Amino acid sequence: MRIVLDAMGGDHAPEAVVEGAVRAGRELDVELLLVGRPEAIEPELAKYDTTDLRLPIIPASQVVEMDEHPATAVRAKPDSSMVVGMKQVKEGDAQAFVSAGNSGGVLAAALFQLGRIQGIRRPALSSVWPTRHGRCFLLDGGANTDCKPEYLLQFALMGSVYAQRVMGIETPRVGIVSNGEEEGKGSVLVQEAYQLLKGSPLHFIGNVEGKDIFHGLADVVVTDGFTGNVIVKTSEGVAMMLMEVLKEEIKKHPLAMLGALLARPAFRAVAKVLDYREYGGGVLLGVNGVVIVAHGRSDAQAIASAVRVAKQAVEGEVVPTIQAGLAELAAN
Amino acid sequence: MRIVLDAMGGDHAPEAVVEGAVRAGRELDVELLLVGRPEAIEPELAKYDTTDLRLPIIPASQVVEMDEHPATAVRAKPDSSMVVGMKQVKEGDAQAFVSAGNSGGVLAAALFQLGRIQGIRRPALSSVWPTRHGRCFLLDGGANTDCKPEYLLQFALMGSVYAQRVMGIETPRVGIVSNGEEEGKGSVLVQEAYQLLKGSPLHFIGNVEGKDIFHGLADVVVTDGFTGNVIVKTSEGVAMMLMEVLKEEIKKHPLAMLGALLARPAFRAVAKVLDYREYGGGVLLGVNGVVIVAHGRSDAQAIASAVRVAKQAVEGEVVPTIQAGLAELAAN
Repeated sequence: MRIVLDAMGGDHAPEAVVEGAVRAGRELDVELLLVGRPEAIEPELAKYDTTDLRLPIIPASQVVEMDEHPATAVRAKPDSSMVVGMKQVKEGDAQAFVSAGNSGGVLAAALFQLGRIQGIRRPALSSVWPTRHGRCFLLDGGANTDCKPEYLLQFALMGSVYAQRVMGIETPRVGIVSNGEEEGKGSVLVQEAYQLLKGSPLHFIGNVEGKDIFHGLADVVVTDGFTGNVIVKTSEGVAMMLMEVLKEEIKKHPLAMLGALLARPAFRAVAKVLDYREYGGGVLLGVNGVVIVAHGRSDAQAIASAVRVAKQAVEGEVVPTIQAGLAELAAN
Repeated sequence: MRIVLDAMGGDHAPEAVVEGAVRAGRELDVELLLVGRPEAIEPELAKYDTTDLRLPIIPASQVVEMDEHPATAVRAKPDSSMVVGMKQVKEGDAQAFVSAGNSGGVLAAALFQLGRIQGIRRPALSSVWPTRHGRCFLLDGGANTDCKPEYLLQFALMGSVYAQRVMGIETPRVGIVSNGEEEGKGSVLVQEAYQLLKGSPLHFIGNVEGKDIFHGLADVVVTDGFTGNVIVKTSEGVAMMLMEVLKEEIKKHPLAMLGALLARPAFRAVAKVLDYREYGGGVLLGVNGVVIVAHGRSDAQAIASAVRVAKQAVEGEVVPTIQAGLAELAAN
């Protein structure tokens, strides 16, 4: 299998991307195409023994920066690592694309180059989240600010396929984010999407509230991109605030500092639950190819996890399964 | 000052409410009208020395239960503690109403009995939230699922008045929840409300993301009731999950257990940051009177805090100041 890596994407590119590629190359049976400026990639590659690895460089002279307007930058930079990399997938030279760069840019490049899966109204940014009892899959995490009920139904389908094919959940429980558990609660959008989901062949369990997500009530949590972004960012904010308050308080008391030292394995375990590096980044579902959007702060481990996720999505035939599922939804 | 307490409202009513009334009566210079079933309230009151306190009972034979449909229950139970209590405020016999009962019921009773402040389109449920650097005031926390831009402008006004008059913040910074910091980010609703806020005399600082709320970037955080509810519930869910994971991990390691024991003051400080009992419950802003919606799980301390908040809102003349602010918005 061949997977494209955007060597220029992310806060720690190209170092972290190249190191991640080396790790992934050693752990997984994949060929990784490193797309970007050869003069930036080669010295990084030279740091490692790559004799048994397949890590060819595909030259691309431009870079879509993190703070650029996504669609504009992607149009203005046809020789950027994102556009050149995405073309490899489009032309069948590679099976998946992974980038830790500007996520809007990845979305734009994917839409321009790969297009949407036929019948899919809007692609969704999705990500795996920790729960008390395991993991859940949340979408849309921010690609579509204003949504229509049909989009949410399609998100639910795509999330179910992903949960089945990549997370190994046989019959994924699908919930829709609402401001109350009972049917009838929610915005007009949620109420209409609820009815579509109820009538679909998916395993719909109804409304889930913000707290239910982390209780693990649903395997697939569906929402519009505005609310999804708020959930993702609020969770980060609360977790960071709690850990900071805890640290500050611990510093105030010498005995507590000793205590924290002794309790370090427990703190590490909590940090691991929250660690995006374990999850391998988000998945852009609904485009005509496997596209993984890794966190901008990705280090080598996060990049390697993202490559693993990409490989699983290809092996799980996520894209053709979504296509088949759409036909089933339409026939329903 | 006279404040009505719904003696029958909340998971621990009437015990916690009566105990909270006794505490508040001792700490604050207020007369507390205990509304509800005398046969339930009297034995609770008998547990305390109330010789110097003013705690009259106002009989009400019915109770709006936690799981009842709010508006229906309030209509069907004219002799409920909520309706009878709210009438005390309407008729000028008391200056504020406090309940830990069915929050939708409180909203319905307030709307039916007190009505809205003239010119206010929708009342909002608001609450004080911890941040890294202090506190912020979030509204709407769930009263209005689908909102219009003008509602959000009015929420911002009401929140600013509350932050000034009760929280003592001279020039409250107002932010609107969005899925990105830059102007132009956000749903159609947010984008339109942004323009209204920008043109208003309020101190508008622009979009805030989910994580910014806990960074303390804004003193007043404005959003629709759907998103507000999701923020509140997601925060609860994340905090609970983290604390639970930490507990479980600590149990696995004997040394970590010792460590956690030593670090207990730090954990207590974190728990206090999260403790709704410290904040005295939510405030229903926009109705024609001071109405405090305490948490359903309120204990005596939470009830006493809610009474303190009610007193501050009356003393801060929140209702007339909102009225004056509306005139200023209209003249702008």
